[in-house]
Amino acid sequence: MANKVVDLASTLSAFSERWSPKVVARVNDYEIKLVKLEGEFVWHKHDETDELFFVVAGELTIRMRDGDVVLRAGQLFVVPRGVEHCPVADGEVQAMLIEPAGVRNTGDATGPLTARMDDSFL
Amino acid sequence: MANKVVDLASTLSAFSERWSPKVVARVNDYEIKLVKLEGEFVWHKHDETDELFFVVAGELTIRMRDGDVVLRAGQLFVVPRGVEHCPVADGEVQAMLIEPAGVRNTGDATGPLTARMDDSFL
Repeated sequence: MANKVVDLASTLSAFSERWSPKVVARVNDYEIKLVKLEGEFVWHKHDETDELFFVVAGELTIRMRDGDVVLRAGQLFVVPRGVEHCPVADGEVQAMLIEPAGVRNTGDATGPLTARMDDSFL
Repeated sequence: MANKVVDLASTLSAFSERWSPKVVARVNDYEIKLVKLEGEFVWHKHDETDELFFVVAGELTIRMRDGDVVLRAGQLFVVPRGVEHCPVADGEVQAMLIEPAGVRNTGDATGPLTARMDDSFL
């Protein structure tokens, strides 16, 4: 069995890059990713999928055109498909993302922050 | 927008039933559920899907035919589809489950512990 126990805190302590999600588990064709965020990301949307943010540590603001959502440790929020959003982390934020495999982190906004798929922690 | 911030701890404090998962968010056709577990469940499997367990509080043992997995707060594990398992909680365990909508909690083992879908927290 390839599956293993994933400890969020210890996995998050094993890397330092920002905006570079690490796939840590798969549920059918969905991926569970851990990521460190700091500063402001880019406005983007995912036309094909919802995207779940769960904050493990820190405070994350998800800017949306019709208002911001603020997430603290132990809170989750689902950005609906097609909704433009821009994550902003004032200080380091540690988060878990849940979405289908193959979703590009920058959605329709490609650029220097577009991350390659990293499953080296799987 | 129907979506809202879900605070795991406060949602979990709002109910006391054991083995009765509450749907708290949806990601496309997947459901995020919160559940309180205590004691021993039933051996079962889900032939059609993997199932993710994330422990929020307490210590959960997932018995499987080829060995047990022990999960503590902040740890997750994916039971692969088709793998028989039996969750056992020594004391109260608070957990988050991630799986496709419509999965029966007791899988192929129906009985008194089979829960109805409860989305009253959504």
